[in-house]
Amino acid sequence: MTSSLPTDPPTVADIRAAAARIAGVAVRTPLLEAPLLNDRIGARLLLKPECLQRTGSFKFRGAYNRISMIPAGDRGRGVVAYSSGNHAQGVAAAARMLNTPATIIMPSDAPAIKRANTEAWGATVVPYDRYSENREAIGAALAERTGATIVRPYDDPGIIAGQGTIGLEIAAQAAELDASLDAVLVCCGGGGLVSGTALALSDTAPGVPVWCVEPEGFDDTRRSLDSGTRQSNAADAHSICDALLAPTPGEITFPLNKRLLAGGLAVSDDEALAAMATAFEAFKVVLEPGGAVALAAALSGKLPIAGKTIAVVGSGGNVDPAVFRRALESAKGAE
Amino acid sequence: MTSSLPTDPPTVADIRAAAARIAGVAVRTPLLEAPLLNDRIGARLLLKPECLQRTGSFKFRGAYNRISMIPAGDRGRGVVAYSSGNHAQGVAAAARMLNTPATIIMPSDAPAIKRANTEAWGATVVPYDRYSENREAIGAALAERTGATIVRPYDDPGIIAGQGTIGLEIAAQAAELDASLDAVLVCCGGGGLVSGTALALSDTAPGVPVWCVEPEGFDDTRRSLDSGTRQSNAADAHSICDALLAPTPGEITFPLNKRLLAGGLAVSDDEALAAMATAFEAFKVVLEPGGAVALAAALSGKLPIAGKTIAVVGSGGNVDPAVFRRALESAKGAE
Repeated sequence: MTSSLPTDPPTVADIRAAAARIAGVAVRTPLLEAPLLNDRIGARLLLKPECLQRTGSFKFRGAYNRISMIPAGDRGRGVVAYSSGNHAQGVAAAARMLNTPATIIMPSDAPAIKRANTEAWGATVVPYDRYSENREAIGAALAERTGATIVRPYDDPGIIAGQGTIGLEIAAQAAELDASLDAVLVCCGGGGLVSGTALALSDTAPGVPVWCVEPEGFDDTRRSLDSGTRQSNAADAHSICDALLAPTPGEITFPLNKRLLAGGLAVSDDEALAAMATAFEAFKVVLEPGGAVALAAALSGKLPIAGKTIAVVGSGGNVDPAVFRRALESAKGAE
Repeated sequence: MTSSLPTDPPTVADIRAAAARIAGVAVRTPLLEAPLLNDRIGARLLLKPECLQRTGSFKFRGAYNRISMIPAGDRGRGVVAYSSGNHAQGVAAAARMLNTPATIIMPSDAPAIKRANTEAWGATVVPYDRYSENREAIGAALAERTGATIVRPYDDPGIIAGQGTIGLEIAAQAAELDASLDAVLVCCGGGGLVSGTALALSDTAPGVPVWCVEPEGFDDTRRSLDSGTRQSNAADAHSICDALLAPTPGEITFPLNKRLLAGGLAVSDDEALAAMATAFEAFKVVLEPGGAVALAAALSGKLPIAGKTIAVVGSGGNVDPAVFRRALESAKGAE
């Protein structure tokens, strides 16, 4: 028996409740600034490096919050999640901390590091083919059989509220730095992170435009915002940003994003790789391609940032060494 | 006219005063933990990633504290520092923030990134040959001529107190994580960071052994601690750890270290490179070779750490991309 999935969007109060749940468990990542980079680009850039978060991405925040909300009597039946990798690790780690068995349905072509780490957290991994199988159906069948709770990657108010804690932190940390934000850029796959962050900022920094950033070919949210209705990506699209390959905006996240976002931006694989090299050089952090797209949008002029103060979320750092070496090599070639 | 250089060792009160001066200016770097790495090594490892500090290393703390202590009437005549690179950037950045001209005497073979960044901070760089010239003499002559204040890299109580703020933070952050420390490992060039950190911990975590870690061939402090008197390194020694090449323990730092440290450890270049790869994979941070030696000592079994809780300082991340690629390649080869 599974309980039906929640469908109401979260509120700012839900984000504050999530912040209380994850306090002392999640890392309060710093808001970093690199003055020499600022000099170079003529803007003030603030980076929220969620690669330093437990499990190497922001996903731990939502997963811990969501699993904490499962009634104690149901937690023992476990959780089921489907994920390209970062959500998987977030759920697996949070489940371990909360003594809940976790099963993760993962694409068979996910980076090796993500599968290995998910299993190392003690989760059971069930692979599927992302081009021919339906992960939601696999997850629903498993949950039906075991009574486990489905922990969706983004279309869940508890997940969105957990990710939104980043928005609360950005507002507070920008104030500590005497920085008055002109815009906030956040990557977007299914839209959980950006919708939660925008919701938090609508309360703590009202009027500051929040933009979502997607990989080229996976700019479904940008096109959906432009058209007003949910659009999908081409089934044969490919991107190096493996964390951001959701096919279409979420049912809960899209109405939030439609209400809250200033718009959408898209970056190329090369722009993402160049941003990874900048994060290495200027901030000394490791970003994965999908984690670097917001920084990439700021650096590659997708928005006019001259003279502005821009916060960008660096959402994760789970990248194979070979891809990171490629980012460093491309940066060297560009010098 | 230069004022004579201070020679009294700092006190814990000096470190607390330094913490107040740098609050809101320096980054309070988080204390990171990677549970999967802990599982693998059978110990609890806490990493203080000072690569995230302004200018990419801990050196900013001491420099900002020291320059803040220069009487306002003297600051306009500027500061002079000699440094292999990280102290240079720390002094240059702190001087810029405090509106003080900075001249940096830098080895002509320092990594390109370090010289470029020092100049980008607005400092004047004067190169010297580290094998044939005496940087102290060059600095003293320059200070004599201009009236600038010499900001030594480690043998200065204001510098040591500034670096010691890391010890205060480690103690507070370990408590927040419910971690009871069994040992703290800190890299050592001239000994400013480790002596300040050990002094702070002697007050905030009394009884916790603090070890210094040096590169093989530059283990002057280890040998000095063993013999009880200050030893020097061979003039022809070489190491990839360019931040840790001081020739002999400091006049102020060594008596502190002799009183406060449990002992010294040394690691090879390969061990430092392997630790850089682990920092990449497990903590998503960029460490330079010298910044990785404390982590390297923990990972390579220089101390028995099984079942223990060990804090290590990752002191900096100013590394050329080619060296970082080499670290990632060596890690892959070791798999």
